[in-house]
Amino acid sequence: MTVSLSRQLVSEFTGTLVLVATVVGSGIMAETLTSDTAVALWGNTAATGAILFVLISVLGPISGAHFNPAVSLAFLMRGELKVSLFALFVAAQIAGGLAGTGLAHLMFEDALFQASQHVRAGPSQWVSEGVATFALLMAIFGCIRFRPDAVPAAVGLVIMAGYWWTSSTSFANPAVTIARVFTDTFSGIRAVDAPMFILAQLGAAVLATFFFKWLLAEPE
Amino acid sequence: MTVSLSRQLVSEFTGTLVLVATVVGSGIMAETLTSDTAVALWGNTAATGAILFVLISVLGPISGAHFNPAVSLAFLMRGELKVSLFALFVAAQIAGGLAGTGLAHLMFEDALFQASQHVRAGPSQWVSEGVATFALLMAIFGCIRFRPDAVPAAVGLVIMAGYWWTSSTSFANPAVTIARVFTDTFSGIRAVDAPMFILAQLGAAVLATFFFKWLLAEPE
Amino acid sequence: MTVSLSRQLVSEFTGTLVLVATVVGSGIMAETLTSDTAVALWGNTAATGAILFVLISVLGPISGAHFNPAVSLAFLMRGELKVSLFALFVAAQIAGGLAGTGLAHLMFEDALFQASQHVRAGPSQWVSEGVATFALLMAIFGCIRFRPDAVPAAVGLVIMAGYWWTSSTSFANPAVTIARVFTDTFSGIRAVDAPMFILAQLGAAVLATFFFKWLLAEPE
Amino acid sequence: MTVSLSRQLVSEFTGTLVLVATVVGSGIMAETLTSDTAVALWGNTAATGAILFVLISVLGPISGAHFNPAVSLAFLMRGELKVSLFALFVAAQIAGGLAGTGLAHLMFEDALFQASQHVRAGPSQWVSEGVATFALLMAIFGCIRFRPDAVPAAVGLVIMAGYWWTSSTSFANPAVTIARVFTDTFSGIRAVDAPMFILAQLGAAVLATFFFKWLLAEPE
Repeated sequence: MTVSLSRQLVSEFTGTLVLVATVVGSGIMAETLTSDTAVALWGNTAATGAILFVLISVLGPISGAHFNPAVSLAFLMRGELKVSLFALFVAAQIAGGLAGTGLAHLMFEDALFQASQHVRAGPSQWVSEGVATFALLMAIFGCIRFRPDAVPAAVGLVIMAGYWWTSSTSFANPAVTIARVFTDTFSGIRAVDAPMFILAQLGAAVLATFFFKWLLAEPE
Repeated sequence: MTVSLSRQLVSEFTGTLVLVATVVGSGIMAETLTSDTAVALWGNTAATGAILFVLISVLGPISGAHFNPAVSLAFLMRGELKVSLFALFVAAQIAGGLAGTGLAHLMFEDALFQASQHVRAGPSQWVSEGVATFALLMAIFGCIRFRPDAVPAAVGLVIMAGYWWTSSTSFANPAVTIARVFTDTFSGIRAVDAPMFILAQLGAAVLATFFFKWLLAEPE
Repeated sequence: MTVSLSRQLVSEFTGTLVLVATVVGSGIMAETLTSDTAVALWGNTAATGAILFVLISVLGPISGAHFNPAVSLAFLMRGELKVSLFALFVAAQIAGGLAGTGLAHLMFEDALFQASQHVRAGPSQWVSEGVATFALLMAIFGCIRFRPDAVPAAVGLVIMAGYWWTSSTSFANPAVTIARVFTDTFSGIRAVDAPMFILAQLGAAVLATFFFKWLLAEPE
Repeated sequence: MTVSLSRQLVSEFTGTLVLVATVVGSGIMAETLTSDTAVALWGNTAATGAILFVLISVLGPISGAHFNPAVSLAFLMRGELKVSLFALFVAAQIAGGLAGTGLAHLMFEDALFQASQHVRAGPSQWVSEGVATFALLMAIFGCIRFRPDAVPAAVGLVIMAGYWWTSSTSFANPAVTIARVFTDTFSGIRAVDAPMFILAQLGAAVLATFFFKWLLAEPE
């Protein structure tokens, strides 16, 4: 790829920013408008899935549209991302995520950065995060291998499903997890709960990289 | 196809596992969050449709992405699956389905295997299962014939519609039916009700195979 | 097209049957599960849009997937359907629609044919039906002209939107209108109200055929 | 492009008309059917996203399917629209939008033009409009550059997400904003609040044009 480094980093920053602003903002909108938590979760789900399709379609050709350190880690392991670029990507993603939380709060007239009180802990939630991240990488690796132009739809849809079939609602992204520590709204997570989420996500990314390397190998 | 047998079986196992975990998990999430059963059914619907698109896009090129003994039976009848492979596929699908129920319960901190008390019986429900399976095979055979790259979307959408237009909510899959016997949550079915569901599904698969062989024949 | 006449008629019959069974069945399911009419309408909307994508993808290459006398009328006017075939198509569509109502009632344990008490009348509703049919033909003619493989998605989506932006919920189809006379459930319409709906639909089909013939003409 | 001017203007007029009628009409339908505002917003969201896919698929090849003075301004700045055509497009869009409001009211038996009392003001809403317009142009410019056939889906989805992640529900369109001044229903906006919305939209369009000119430049 011959896209300049600055464009790639701006792409990762912008994409993660918009993704997090969508997750946090739609959560605030939803919990403000309804007292039915499933309806609120659906607002959150639909907005997130929709924006992922858009962001990956537009920014994929520039930086790969990772927006996610767990995804960048997988590409590092596959030898498709250099260590130096990996570090810069992760920095851009985390910075973008934090900016996204701030932007969502700005749009909803709230304090720019807050400390979430939302408890998300326990083995069931950690398993959920591992499963969610594994499923995300299945969507990415599988579509890249067999049907590259389906990546934007598949990633949007796997996260939409993840909101409902995992008990953690499928964060599946360390940069997004960190960003959600700083919002005390629908989509937040307590700072103390974030490390185990991130550990589960990164662990699943490693496992998924090995598993799909085998499963998706060229037919012999 | 030159994909190794082990990869094919792992593909059927994994796909059915994720499919069932999505059906069961999203049912638990939905009934936990709302008292409006239609809203709950929508959460179940959206998650299932979304994951089907992903699973078929990724695993279709490996094993055909049946995840369903009724679908494998149809391909057996069409001469596109050997008897020995059919038996192995069905075993992998049933095992994957059971693992999926267990995984969903693990993620939602519930007993791994339970006995469903959900009554689903009577001629109306059996007709529904026949109709739902017939519609599923229409989507599969028709898209394979005319528009292969629409299979993932068409299967996801035909099942999404099936949740609403059939009174049984469209199981349409013997392996998934067996797996749902073991969850006493939103998506469960009593063990005693499962055989008639499965019979209706397999009967419809046979009928659909003959009907669409005729309807989709090459223009003379 | 060299598809045999019998296949074409079975295609129009089956497609209209499944379409109507979906509209009526999902309406029954929805009104049974919720007391929120907007949630019920959404169940109806999603199921209908989803099944249209499937039916048109599968049956389009066989019969054109009209399922709708107003659409067949438009193709007759464009000279793409002979008068004799038009008559047979309309008969198959009406018969299929009636069978669809019966099937939905069978699946939901209801009397096979009923007399709807649902009042749908007045100039606002008639304008709505004209507008809905005009929009449907816009989707069909426009996609056929510029992007044929988007027809299934565009028709599903234009009807989904129509459920909400027209006060009549967008029947837009004389065969479906007749079929819905015979269900006294969510999606029904009184027999006495059907003729004006059908008149508005056919009138709009004529207007739309002329309008889009002009608008979509080859660039000079 | 050799499409005649009259066809292009009719395309912009018709597209904006149907878009506004969908936004306003689905808002009326939704608020009539439910007391849950999030459910109502979802009806509004789904209808708008669906019709955008259809309108852009059909009218894109004729006039570019702007339906939006902010989008036309961006194409003017990019040198892809002459000043005289820009002025005519904007006139057609505003006229179409007003006709759309009238049509929605006609279909829902309401006064054709009304004065909205819906307060939408304050810096948070203005930032939201800027962000929403920026995201819209990201979807348009990015897809045109890398994946032109995804424009209809991407624009529909970016607006669907915008309904939820911005506090203003993402008008992102001066012609639509003007049209919504004239409806005192769910989707309305007070006349006095419109100018700041429009200013934010146009400002963001200018910024986005420069930003994406840089980001999407050919790889060096």
